[in-house]
Amino acid sequence: MTGPRWIAAAWGQSSLRIWAMAGRKVLTEGASDQGVSRLGPRDFEPALLTLANDMLPLDEVTRVLICGQAGARKGWVEVPHAMVPCAPHAAPPVPAPSRDPRISVGILPGLGQTDPPDVMRGEETRIAGFLLDRASFDGVLCMPGLHGKWVRLRHGIVQGFRTMMTGEIYGLIARQSVLRPMMDDSWDEAAFRHAVDESTRHPETIVSSIFGIRASALLNTPAPGLARARLSGLMVGCDIGAMRTWWHNRPVAVLGTERVSTLYASALAAQGADVQALAGDRLTLAGLIAAHERTGHLEPSAAAHG
Amino acid sequence: MTGPRWIAAAWGQSSLRIWAMAGRKVLTEGASDQGVSRLGPRDFEPALLTLANDMLPLDEVTRVLICGQAGARKGWVEVPHAMVPCAPHAAPPVPAPSRDPRISVGILPGLGQTDPPDVMRGEETRIAGFLLDRASFDGVLCMPGLHGKWVRLRHGIVQGFRTMMTGEIYGLIARQSVLRPMMDDSWDEAAFRHAVDESTRHPETIVSSIFGIRASALLNTPAPGLARARLSGLMVGCDIGAMRTWWHNRPVAVLGTERVSTLYASALAAQGADVQALAGDRLTLAGLIAAHERTGHLEPSAAAHG
Repeated sequence: MTGPRWIAAAWGQSSLRIWAMAGRKVLTEGASDQGVSRLGPRDFEPALLTLANDMLPLDEVTRVLICGQAGARKGWVEVPHAMVPCAPHAAPPVPAPSRDPRISVGILPGLGQTDPPDVMRGEETRIAGFLLDRASFDGVLCMPGLHGKWVRLRHGIVQGFRTMMTGEIYGLIARQSVLRPMMDDSWDEAAFRHAVDESTRHPETIVSSIFGIRASALLNTPAPGLARARLSGLMVGCDIGAMRTWWHNRPVAVLGTERVSTLYASALAAQGADVQALAGDRLTLAGLIAAHERTGHLEPSAAAHG
Repeated sequence: MTGPRWIAAAWGQSSLRIWAMAGRKVLTEGASDQGVSRLGPRDFEPALLTLANDMLPLDEVTRVLICGQAGARKGWVEVPHAMVPCAPHAAPPVPAPSRDPRISVGILPGLGQTDPPDVMRGEETRIAGFLLDRASFDGVLCMPGLHGKWVRLRHGIVQGFRTMMTGEIYGLIARQSVLRPMMDDSWDEAAFRHAVDESTRHPETIVSSIFGIRASALLNTPAPGLARARLSGLMVGCDIGAMRTWWHNRPVAVLGTERVSTLYASALAAQGADVQALAGDRLTLAGLIAAHERTGHLEPSAAAHG
């Protein structure tokens, strides 16, 4: 016996991932491109059922626990942010309206901060997963992405955080700016490292340095991979450089997809940070499991199986 | 008698402006959206003639003097950059091939710089126009735009320059990022000034502060005009803040379109700079006139009228 069945879900702007669970064990999983940015308020339940239908027993109510953008203003139901400083899962999941009698849906709240104003939805669950084996961690999390997060953690409490639009701005510049024709699939690691170093020390010069990539190619014959690696290095270095007072002299854990985590971890290490990289995806599921175990007994549907 | 007829032209990425001249006097002018980004190598002469056709006498060869992107690699003919330090019009115009017997075309070279790598095409002519009445100017030019330029000038020589992608990045964020839904046509001047001050003092925080605009709107009801003014202020402040060592304790002249020049001049003044704003368009034409007068006699077509 591995425990009652339930469904874990992470709903982002551009994708939905779900896991059919028996206690802590993954039975099956699924994913779709039905992210929140594509959905209206009535589309959430159908989008979920498209993936979950075959996972649901007919004669039971299965609990679905969701983290991420499903709780945003234009999500399934708006879930207020829990305000920091607080634990990543300080507030219980909020019920979301559903018609199918087989499911009972709860959405985990994100975190909010007033000074400076900032928000996250989904990353708090990854933080909760990180803390499961490291309850006394006193340091900084770096969670790179479209809207990357830096998180100051002390003994299970999120002290504060900063969102960097690094990933989104990188994408806009690489795909839609005057630099686009220079982007190729190669990668010049030395150019990346050099740009990180330059931009970490002088993050304020980023807007000028970016045009330098274009200018350099007009004055000389550009080498393959140079433009992309240099743009990436300038952006990562700006991100890291702006947060130096946070990570300096504190342990840093990078939680992201493998490719981006590797870039950030190597850039931070080159700057002298005490850094480790961890797989972010697994931590999100771990955080959902922890939240399920702590709050699941509150709901009658889950209690019937307990 | 106002001097021989000729045509002045400024050819940018997104537009073409021409002036039919008699000496220094403007007879008529025209403009089109046939910028360099839309044209292949064979499209330049037809695009010019569409605007200039009625300005050309049938039985004479009229000189056409062009500044800007028409001299770029994908322009009418590639014109090498003159390398700084040098005067803005250190090198003569380069002939461009044309079929129509009524015209003789020359394109003015832009400026290049090796350390750091940078380029300009068109702004050098605006600088030449600025210098006509201020030959001994020892200070800094701020030329805001899609790819804005900062120029260190001393006694007619461009000592060095920096291009800022501020305008292009602002446009990408305002029109295509997660901030887009918050942009409206209002303007909150106090928010602009506050953001300039914040970002001038800490330009390295720009990538985080930009997301704060979004976060703030999610936590509170956003006021009209706040998001656009704040994004603009953060970008202008980052630009100004990065160039502080250039403009500090030196006179600054802002040369741009009226709207953007006013923003930069007020932001610079608030930071204590000794700043004046001038109309950039008129200076470009003044620079073309000066270049025509200095180099026009070299060409037989112009000499016939001299």
